Order: sequence, then C-alpha cells, then structure tokens
Amino acid sequence: MGQMVAGKSSEETIVRRIIKRVRIPPGSGLKVGIGDDCAVFRPRGSADDLLFTTDLLLEDVHFRRETHSAEDVGYKALARGLSDIAAMGGDPRFCLLSLAIPRWASPAWVDRFYRGFFGLAGKTATPLAGGDLARSRRLACDVIVCGAVPRNSALLRSGARPGDAIYVSGLLGGSALGLAGGKGRARKRHLRPEPRLALGKFLREKLHAHAAMDLSDGLSLDLRRMCLASGVSAEIEAPPVFPGASRKQALHGGEDYELLFVAPPASNPPSDFEGLPLTRIGTITAGRAGAVRLSGRPLAPLAFDHFRRP
Amino acid sequence: MGQMVAGKSSEETIVRRIIKRVRIPPGSGLKVGIGDDCAVFRPRGSADDLLFTTDLLLEDVHFRRETHSAEDVGYKALARGLSDIAAMGGDPRFCLLSLAIPRWASPAWVDRFYRGFFGLAGKTATPLAGGDLARSRRLACDVIVCGAVPRNSALLRSGARPGDAIYVSGLLGGSALGLAGGKGRARKRHLRPEPRLALGKFLREKLHAHAAMDLSDGLSLDLRRMCLASGVSAEIEAPPVFPGASRKQALHGGEDYELLFVAPPASNPPSDFEGLPLTRIGTITAGRAGAVRLSGRPLAPLAFDHFRRP
Repeated sequence: MGQMVAGKSSEETIVRRIIKRVRIPPGSGLKVGIGDDCAVFRPRGSADDLLFTTDLLLEDVHFRRETHSAEDVGYKALARGLSDIAAMGGDPRFCLLSLAIPRWASPAWVDRFYRGFFGLAGKTATPLAGGDLARSRRLACDVIVCGAVPRNSALLRSGARPGDAIYVSGLLGGSALGLAGGKGRARKRHLRPEPRLALGKFLREKLHAHAAMDLSDGLSLDLRRMCLASGVSAEIEAPPVFPGASRKQALHGGEDYELLFVAPPASNPPSDFEGLPLTRIGTITAGRAGAVRLSGRPLAPLAFDHFRRP
Repeated sequence: MGQMVAGKSSEETIVRRIIKRVRIPPGSGLKVGIGDDCAVFRPRGSADDLLFTTDLLLEDVHFRRETHSAEDVGYKALARGLSDIAAMGGDPRFCLLSLAIPRWASPAWVDRFYRGFFGLAGKTATPLAGGDLARSRRLACDVIVCGAVPRNSALLRSGARPGDAIYVSGLLGGSALGLAGGKGRARKRHLRPEPRLALGKFLREKLHAHAAMDLSDGLSLDLRRMCLASGVSAEIEAPPVFPGASRKQALHGGEDYELLFVAPPASNPPSDFEGLPLTRIGTITAGRAGAVRLSGRPLAPLAFDHFRRP
C-alpha cells in the first residue's frame, strides 16, 4: 500500500483528490487511514490494533511472464503486503487473495503460483482466509494482508522528529540491479524480497523507533514521504549499496523492501539485526516538510510513478 | 467473495485445490475461512467478530465501458462486497480499494468512478481506509469490505437444517433481464443493486435465521452452495419473478444481490421487510448434500462459471 500517499507527483494528485472525499463516521474504529503503509483499525474492546494493506500485482506492469516464474509471482504477490506489515512492527494474522487468471496460465502454472504463495504464507504463519477468482486477459492479483500490534503501538510514518537518526536495513539497489538484468543475488533480491517481519517487531518492541516504513518505491521517494507525513526534513549521506549496484540504483531503485526507520540518537541500534546490517544514513531536521538533502544538496525523488506522463 | 466456494464446477475444482493447501496456525483468530460469503476473524479480546470479503470488478469481464457509466462501475465495485457483509448480518466498518486505471480513463472518468463509489460508501457508513493504485490496459478493481457482528453471531451458509423453511428477499431475475437489454427498473437493478444491510441485520438479530447468503451467482447455484455447506438438500417451488424477467432468469440469473435465508418454520418471518417482499420458496430436507429439486425435479445449476470450458 506504499503508493497511496499524498505528495507531489501525478499519482499523488489522484490520492489527494481521493482523500478529500473520505468521510470517517463518528465512533469508527479507524485510527489511521490513507497515507501510511497500512490502515489501522481498532476492533471494539480489542487488546490489538489491526493493520490492513492491499497490493496489486499486474502482468506487464509489475511482472512479465517471460522473466518471472509462476512461483516467483506467487511469492512476490504476498511478500509486498507482508513488508507493509513489517514496516509497522506487526505480526501477520491472515491474508486474502483476489486472482484473475488468463487463458495462457495452465493449471500447472496456477499450481506453481500457489506453491510460491503458500510457501511464504506457511513460513510467516499467514493463512489464506478467502478471496475471489475471475478470468481476464492478463494476470492480475490483489493481496490483502491483515496484521496485529498491541494497541497504540503501530510504527507510523508520521512520528519522525528533528534530531532523530535515520537508518536503513540491508544494502540498497539490489532489486533495481536485478530488474536491469543483474544475475545471482541481485536477481534473487528482485524476485524474492524478504519481508523484514522480525526486524519490524524489534524496532517496535525493543528500539521504540519513532517512525518506520518499507522501501518499496526507492529511498529518495520513500524518505520524502516519511518527511511529508512527519512534517520534517532530512539530511542524508549515500546509503549502503548492494554489491554491483550503482549509487543511483541505491538512491532511487524500488522494491528492495528493506526498512527505513528513525529513532532518537541515544537509542543506539545494534550494527546488525540477525546478520542484517543496520546503517545510519543521516538525521531528521526541522526544515521544509518533505525536503531531503544528500551530502548537502537537494535530492529529487526519481522513483517510478505509474501516473507520470511520459 | 461468493465465488470462492468448493462444489462441482471447474472454478470450484481450483478452489478445492487451494483449500487443501491452507494451513491455519494454532491460536489463529480465524473462525471461518474460504467457503462462505466472508471470512470471519476474532481479534484478541474483542466483543466483535470481523467479517472480510473481497471482490474483483474487471473491465470486459464484469462490466463494459460502452454500457456502464463511471458512476455505475464505482457504485457496483463497492455494492458487491457490502452485499456479502449483509448476507452475514454485519455492519460495515471500512473498505479498501485497489484500482488499476487504463489510459482511456480520463481524470473526469476517474472522478465520476469515485463519485459512485463514495456515494454508496457515505450512505452505508463505510469509510475508505486505504488501497493501491496502478496503471493497466484494462480497468481492474478489487474492493475489500470489513464488517462486524457481535461474537459468534455471523450468519453462515453452513447452518441450514432439515425442516428449515427457505426464503428469498425481493423478486429474482431483474439483473439478468437488465444485462440482456431490459430497460427501466431491470436495468437499474443490474447497474445499482442494493446491498440488503438492514435486512441482514434483521435476520441475525430478530429472526435468528439458521443460514443466509447473498444471491450473486443465481438461485440454482447459490442454493446448491448453501446446501453443500450445510450437508443438506432443498425442495423448492418457482421463486418470485422480477416483472418482465423469465422463469429461467429468476432461477439462474446472477447479480440480483437479494438474500437467500433459512429459518425454522415456527419463526414466521413477516411477508415483507421495510417494503421488500420476503417469500417462502421451499424447505430444507435431509437428502444428498447439495441436491436441489424444483417442483420435484432435479434443478441443475446453470449459472455463469468463469472457468467452465466453452
């Protein structure tokens, strides 16, 4: 659900027009609506807040059947939503899958799709609770993941404060490199991103991070979104780069699904979490909302926008 | 979510294969999974059970832009999910919308789509909590609706018992007539079906119906599904027919979104609910699971199946 965020792009213009129309009825349990990684809903009397995210995966937009195996498509369809749950520090509870199947997809292809999907669902204890099926010309799927956190503890994008240290997990640009033809680990990073569920829980429970989000659309755009949501600016240095990737891929490439988070400087995160590097890349400042500077110069978001005119 | 139900069709074969792979982790709050109108999830400590349903609406599959206005598409995208919530006796809580927008859809078209969507969302107190946006060749949307009922009170498909009286709301076949070119009220029934939310709540709270579902795929197929889920048979007479529709349209036509429900004969439902006729059409019997007889003869389900080979 990383995309439905207001800011300064053509896609974001659509989102702003949507937000204007939303009416939250009084007494609704909706705590966070459009604009974060997940919506947050508090059921009557519940000890938990529930997190909801939904992600489309479309043939010829998000993947191509010539280059993505059925297992990879099934895996990735679920991984993207789990990454949103991780970004809020949540535990997955269940998922729903709407799937439109084209004629080219044989029963064996569909079986392999489900193998990839259920492989990750089993590993992350995210049972499939339902969904919808239809025929279409191109494969289209939409995956909804529900997660849970104790009340009032979800990590939001809006909690960053001036003085907070900015961190990223892992090495960035690997997925962009894999998409651009990179082999081996870069290709695997693109096809099989790992939702950082354990790290997200650590950030919420132990580190008490002020804000977090997943890097789905590239550091430059995603950090800008966090700064907009928090009403702050950011000063960063170059992030850690995936082996073989360019600096540009690390700054602007999408789909790494690492976590971006901020915490008070005194919180001192470990240098790695279960072997995954945690690297400080900068500091939140009090400037104009959404402004990001790299080594002292303005950093424009160059990430992919479905709705930008060519 | 009416479609994801195991039975005897090609689509249902896919669903059975999916169900085999689902693993519900111990202690999961998932009370009802694949196979009913909604999934049912119980949050920790909550007074409510939550209902979840998801429905795809695809261009050239579920609608055509030549014949459906943008407002009608937006309205119907949400109406289908609300009908699933109504079928379980639930109150809507929020919705999510994933929307893939083709180039042919102008900003004005998209605005009118949202006008139809938000018109119904406002009327039914169902705030939009989030979603996803993408570009694609054909318009595709997936709407998730969350509803709530007090714990353990959701109306399921599986509660029908031999001796129960079978009822339908309204008059059937109107949507099929409208789809086949019928004008006026039939066309409106097809384009703007009314989710029977108030009736669903009445069936749960006052009538204590044993089972309910919405008529999305036609009476013959949907009643068969209820009988399969409950392990029972049904004996019916012809249902009440929408003015101008054929008997065949009333028996097999989809998308009426009326409610099918069963209750003990002594429960004596009123002959109408807020002006909507409630008509007894038959009785649940103890025969072979899923067998439906019309005026003493086997009634085959003729409804549309996306996955049946031509």
